[in-house]
Amino acid sequence: MPHDLEVRDKASYIAAYTEKTGRSVSPSHWTNRQKIALVCRILAMNGHASGLAGQVTLRGEQPGTFWIHDYRYGLEEVQARDVLLIDSDMRVLEGDGMANPGARFHAWIYANRPDVNAICHTHPIFASALAMLEVPLIAAHMDTMGLYEEVGFLKEWPGIPFGDDEGRLISGALGGKRCVFLAHHGPLAACATIEEACVLLVAMERAARLQTIALAAGDIRPVDPARGMEGKRLKQTAGSYLAWFAHYARVAIRADGNCVL
Amino acid sequence: MPHDLEVRDKASYIAAYTEKTGRSVSPSHWTNRQKIALVCRILAMNGHASGLAGQVTLRGEQPGTFWIHDYRYGLEEVQARDVLLIDSDMRVLEGDGMANPGARFHAWIYANRPDVNAICHTHPIFASALAMLEVPLIAAHMDTMGLYEEVGFLKEWPGIPFGDDEGRLISGALGGKRCVFLAHHGPLAACATIEEACVLLVAMERAARLQTIALAAGDIRPVDPARGMEGKRLKQTAGSYLAWFAHYARVAIRADGNCVL
Amino acid sequence: MPHDLEVRDKASYIAAYTEKTGRSVSPSHWTNRQKIALVCRILAMNGHASGLAGQVTLRGEQPGTFWIHDYRYGLEEVQARDVLLIDSDMRVLEGDGMANPGARFHAWIYANRPDVNAICHTHPIFASALAMLEVPLIAAHMDTMGLYEEVGFLKEWPGIPFGDDEGRLISGALGGKRCVFLAHHGPLAACATIEEACVLLVAMERAARLQTIALAAGDIRPVDPARGMEGKRLKQTAGSYLAWFAHYARVAIRADGNCVL
Amino acid sequence: MPHDLEVRDKASYIAAYTEKTGRSVSPSHWTNRQKIALVCRILAMNGHASGLAGQVTLRGEQPGTFWIHDYRYGLEEVQARDVLLIDSDMRVLEGDGMANPGARFHAWIYANRPDVNAICHTHPIFASALAMLEVPLIAAHMDTMGLYEEVGFLKEWPGIPFGDDEGRLISGALGGKRCVFLAHHGPLAACATIEEACVLLVAMERAARLQTIALAAGDIRPVDPARGMEGKRLKQTAGSYLAWFAHYARVAIRADGNCVL
Repeated sequence: MPHDLEVRDKASYIAAYTEKTGRSVSPSHWTNRQKIALVCRILAMNGHASGLAGQVTLRGEQPGTFWIHDYRYGLEEVQARDVLLIDSDMRVLEGDGMANPGARFHAWIYANRPDVNAICHTHPIFASALAMLEVPLIAAHMDTMGLYEEVGFLKEWPGIPFGDDEGRLISGALGGKRCVFLAHHGPLAACATIEEACVLLVAMERAARLQTIALAAGDIRPVDPARGMEGKRLKQTAGSYLAWFAHYARVAIRADGNCVL
Repeated sequence: MPHDLEVRDKASYIAAYTEKTGRSVSPSHWTNRQKIALVCRILAMNGHASGLAGQVTLRGEQPGTFWIHDYRYGLEEVQARDVLLIDSDMRVLEGDGMANPGARFHAWIYANRPDVNAICHTHPIFASALAMLEVPLIAAHMDTMGLYEEVGFLKEWPGIPFGDDEGRLISGALGGKRCVFLAHHGPLAACATIEEACVLLVAMERAARLQTIALAAGDIRPVDPARGMEGKRLKQTAGSYLAWFAHYARVAIRADGNCVL
Repeated sequence: MPHDLEVRDKASYIAAYTEKTGRSVSPSHWTNRQKIALVCRILAMNGHASGLAGQVTLRGEQPGTFWIHDYRYGLEEVQARDVLLIDSDMRVLEGDGMANPGARFHAWIYANRPDVNAICHTHPIFASALAMLEVPLIAAHMDTMGLYEEVGFLKEWPGIPFGDDEGRLISGALGGKRCVFLAHHGPLAACATIEEACVLLVAMERAARLQTIALAAGDIRPVDPARGMEGKRLKQTAGSYLAWFAHYARVAIRADGNCVL
Repeated sequence: MPHDLEVRDKASYIAAYTEKTGRSVSPSHWTNRQKIALVCRILAMNGHASGLAGQVTLRGEQPGTFWIHDYRYGLEEVQARDVLLIDSDMRVLEGDGMANPGARFHAWIYANRPDVNAICHTHPIFASALAMLEVPLIAAHMDTMGLYEEVGFLKEWPGIPFGDDEGRLISGALGGKRCVFLAHHGPLAACATIEEACVLLVAMERAARLQTIALAAGDIRPVDPARGMEGKRLKQTAGSYLAWFAHYARVAIRADGNCVL
């Protein structure tokens, strides 16, 4: 041990991190519409855009309602003004546009999971490729520890998810977790806050990219479960999600400030 | 089942989607020259550029004629003013430039398939790599369901397609389908509208990228045929193509508004 | 056969292509310095930049001299004013800067091959990765037919090529061909014109990218040798190189017009 | 041998290179804060950004102190004004912000290695994927010879490195080398100068990218050890690091001049 370093318990460092990020990072003051637009742009900048596929939603104040971006705009285009309030039948309550009928299954998740306030779902390239293998998503890198033992898996593809069977299947595979990986389809995060759902969905595509690169090159080794769970606890602090989201949001705004209009 | 969600037949959701997109999305009012330039730019933004390879054509009003971009410009450069009207011998009837002699096989497709009004063909990197394996293109992800059982395959490479044998072989492998995948060469879409051909060609390269990533990482699992066919019917509605094309076109114009001049 | 298409011999189409491109595409009127800067930028835009690695050279008027860009600038930075005239000992005869001592082996190629007037050599990522396998570069796609039976192979890595042994080995592996692929090192094109060398080096990296993607996904099938040779003859016409180079140069200038200053 | 080329000993060319780069390339005159910001931007431009992961540090004048960028900014955002002076307990001594508690292990390296003045550590995608295989990083290409027999390996992942055990393990695996590759985590370079650490970390991700591409396509062949060591000596000259760093820094500043503010 170097003479000038005092050795302490890891728990004290973790406590200091949690305290410091909690103090240094403020929750954002964006409106619901702005948050959805920012998440769309963040996802697009991280490789999640695929034509008009994908939805970002936020639970509305009235039961059975949620906010969603206009179906006609891709993730890289959405502005705050393109966000609609809809009911669970995809009828527009506020705003002018068309809701993606493929978002029906979001209504099932919101109905089944009162703790979930935001859902992010996309078709990014690496998760989509992995999804064609019908294998679960692996978390085996430090940056993806927020996903450790936190990703459900739906091995069956129920077809394009326009119906209620799909809602039942997807919310069933999600169970009580924050994420689910859908075969032949893509990743989904359902969380208490939209900041967390956004950061976890970015992590899911990164995990899929890591997994496909690694599988092509060799055999992936699992991490030690105790360290995986410790890593998850650290990653799943509110301060950590807020800090990462604030970073992503600044980068998105720097690229195109119109997104929050 | 959550108490506040009424369960309905999937068909009713599909009908609602078709009706809503038909109402919410208008056909574009671009000229033929502008449409070809937009498609070139959209393809370039989706990884289809490879020097001067590839052609986008649109059937002309007079029998035996079609519109094509000047051979000397790459997909990322083409403007509406660079589009020529030519005959099936590649003679320029309108505009000032040089037609790609490699487009001779388009004349064969137009002659054989009266239902086809537009052809898009490129040499994007992943489809080109896959084409070196002489294996068919697989549709096993939701985003590529428009290609399900809709892609012919030409396993033989007849050489650089300057001649009539190549036209006969390529239009033969296309048959009555909307797409064909050409070994050692690349993807091609031949459709009723240029919007559909564009969206399907983008999907072909995405399918090839998914397939090459997935094959390197494991074994691709097929989708259930009934769901594949259902997915194809959904993807092949005019509203779906128009909505995706409108999105792509906006992104292309935002990147360089000169393309439609 | 469709009734309205006259079937002709492929040779007549090839002759028409050669005649038309010869008429439609003019040689460029850039200075030597501008040509080298343009080639550097084109290569950078096509994935060839790797720190300060790589050299683009052009034979000078005086025997034993050649033009080269200043070693201190990366391919994505070089401007025409950064190009030096040097002798075969890397002494600067015109311009102000430092010649890359790693270019000594260019002097060997110019001395051995009077037909060669330009050499392009880089360390792009896919060719570099393939080079670590000590396997030859394969031409099995239409876009890479200019390389068919045209790429020598140096299986031995002689170390960083600062010496004369390296010059002897590299020019020996090149032999009478236009290209050579160097294990643990990278691709090189040595041609009559810098336009041809540039287009072939871009093709070499594309071939390597195709090959690495394809090898990870399956077994590459060779093309029919007669069609490969026919393809090479077509690709190796001056008009074809000039047309592709003019396209690349426009794209490079559009990205940063300063490159020709 | 061509008649007009005098053959010399390779050592004379190497000596000329060392002398010339030493004369042609000046050390930079950036402040510590500017150097850290430039390194962050250079790393981001070379694929090292992953949310808020990674740290770039520089030893401070007072024992037990070092400079580090504010944890809340990603590598692609950091400006000189966001750089803090901290002590080994992550307390901020100069500047306004929050230090990454994950940088505790840097204090261990600085304490153990008096010759080390700068540490760069990131989670880039290819090194991260390779790290999931628990295999060492291979240097088998000319551009990565600076890493030849110069990269330690930590096969065990000790969890998110907030504690002192992690500091002990990581500095132990580094040993007397300039680089270490951490399983399930990422690459790290610890060098006498920040320019060298930056150039070597860029090389580590490039090496990982080369290795993952090559492993997916075939069997990597090692280079001859004597040539590897010769290459390392050449790459590890101060002039070489300064020349590459100056190039990277110009490109970063051209992309966003605010980084040095």
